[in-house]
Amino acid sequence: MSADTDQPTDTGRPTVCILGCGLIGASWAALMLHHGHRVQAWDPVEAARASFAARLAAPLAQLNRLSPRSGDPLALLSVHYSVAAAVADAALIQENAPESIPTKRALYAEVEAAALPDAIIASSTSALRWSDLPPGLTDPSRLITAHPFNPPHLVPLVELYGIEDAVLDQADAMYRGCGQVPVRLRKDATGHIANRLASALWREAVNIVAEGIADVQAMDAALVNGPGLRWSVLGAHMAYHLGGGAGGMAGYLAHLGPSQERRWASLGSPSLTPEVCAALVAGIEVEAAGRTIPQLETQRDEALIAALLARRETPHV
Amino acid sequence: MSADTDQPTDTGRPTVCILGCGLIGASWAALMLHHGHRVQAWDPVEAARASFAARLAAPLAQLNRLSPRSGDPLALLSVHYSVAAAVADAALIQENAPESIPTKRALYAEVEAAALPDAIIASSTSALRWSDLPPGLTDPSRLITAHPFNPPHLVPLVELYGIEDAVLDQADAMYRGCGQVPVRLRKDATGHIANRLASALWREAVNIVAEGIADVQAMDAALVNGPGLRWSVLGAHMAYHLGGGAGGMAGYLAHLGPSQERRWASLGSPSLTPEVCAALVAGIEVEAAGRTIPQLETQRDEALIAALLARRETPHV
Repeated sequence: MSADTDQPTDTGRPTVCILGCGLIGASWAALMLHHGHRVQAWDPVEAARASFAARLAAPLAQLNRLSPRSGDPLALLSVHYSVAAAVADAALIQENAPESIPTKRALYAEVEAAALPDAIIASSTSALRWSDLPPGLTDPSRLITAHPFNPPHLVPLVELYGIEDAVLDQADAMYRGCGQVPVRLRKDATGHIANRLASALWREAVNIVAEGIADVQAMDAALVNGPGLRWSVLGAHMAYHLGGGAGGMAGYLAHLGPSQERRWASLGSPSLTPEVCAALVAGIEVEAAGRTIPQLETQRDEALIAALLARRETPHV
Repeated sequence: MSADTDQPTDTGRPTVCILGCGLIGASWAALMLHHGHRVQAWDPVEAARASFAARLAAPLAQLNRLSPRSGDPLALLSVHYSVAAAVADAALIQENAPESIPTKRALYAEVEAAALPDAIIASSTSALRWSDLPPGLTDPSRLITAHPFNPPHLVPLVELYGIEDAVLDQADAMYRGCGQVPVRLRKDATGHIANRLASALWREAVNIVAEGIADVQAMDAALVNGPGLRWSVLGAHMAYHLGGGAGGMAGYLAHLGPSQERRWASLGSPSLTPEVCAALVAGIEVEAAGRTIPQLETQRDEALIAALLARRETPHV
């Protein structure tokens, strides 16, 4: 099956292969197509392949609001039965397979047999570390983790880790060319940076509900109208640099470091017991107030688009 | 000393007293003045009193960009030598004294002797709990904690705790009338909600630097372009509700709750050792790239104003 009846060959941008046509694959594909890359997609499931082009309509329309483009980006899309056909001629192979080490390793063996020798294999893995993935590859240096943040086409962050700087530089340039903000890890780490931060914050957010300090809706309202808003313009380290008065970070650490350590010691270590889970589920129903998940996603995306347009005029710190 | 040479008396809004003319007091005063409250300010230090009106120029100009108003809001300001004069006729007394229990308690004794019997005493305290403050007050129910998030005039969150619903309702309405978003705590807690979340996130942010996973600048870039951006439009609980597929929060907890608990167990517990502090100070210098703290604050405020204007058109979830 192929949707490439009218595929241009002169975009001048490298071809990208998308392995896995789920939510993350669709978001990556829309982003790459919008920025003029030919995209060759593969999924083992026929229904996923058949519906893939249709799934791209919404993210492509959103991207077009952020940076209007002419022409039909779907003309650059092809969807393939075989991994070998999908990876052919691709400079970047973005893998979005299930979070299973054997599944990914088996897929990489197929990829390596058919791909260009210098093609980059980039895994979107969220849960696994880079070091879980390369065994079986002849050339592990071509493999990187490139973890996006949901929804990838509207959140600029891509977290990169690999062992070969030249490969990372090349991937960095391709993501940056699509408007993303790649961030380099110096060390292979479970959860990269962003999910470690999200997990650390959510642990205390769950604790706040479990301890009865605030309900789910109040907790979320505090975040969105307080630290979340500020972290959208200013990093956490930078916030403490500005919280230290004229002495900056050094002054903050000297004066308030000990109280920050006491605060850390007082944070909670909740467990997701049935009672806590029930409180979270009941609380989120109050907060959702009848809005379905697709409705909430639409609201999220609209608000993200507005925030992205605002920061384009007035950059974050 | 008094700056009320041309003080209107017919604004129709209750008079507010600001105790403590530092950074937070100035931000509160600007916000209240901008929204038409008469503000009576007091500080024990002559230099703080003398410079107070001048310090309000910048935040007032910023607020005027968010919601243009006519007239000179400084006409509503008076600055006083005595606590008794500053609290006279005030419906809300916003206390921004140093984070010392004896200092605050001594101040409340003076306040209670001179204030209207039903005036609300609202403490901006960040580090103390409500229960640290009322001993000595004849009527503890008039005391609340009302914790803003820096900079208060540009970050909507105000965290409220007290023991009398009617008092909280009245304070809630006054803050809301100034464009703030009050959030109620159900329980007295050190760090309220927002600083608990900020502290939990920063612990892992420090760990990421201490462990060498990423440098300070990369850590902040990941936050601002990833989870921070998303938390400015969507709460942390709501993010997991949308991360659970069609099953929402319940589906997320059922399928990924155990992996989230494992992630929590893998988060770091750094100490602010001299080596870690040196890495943070060196890293923030790289990130600041020569920008002074006032320059960084200006950039932060500009970006916050842009974000607030964007969310006014397109509300967060």
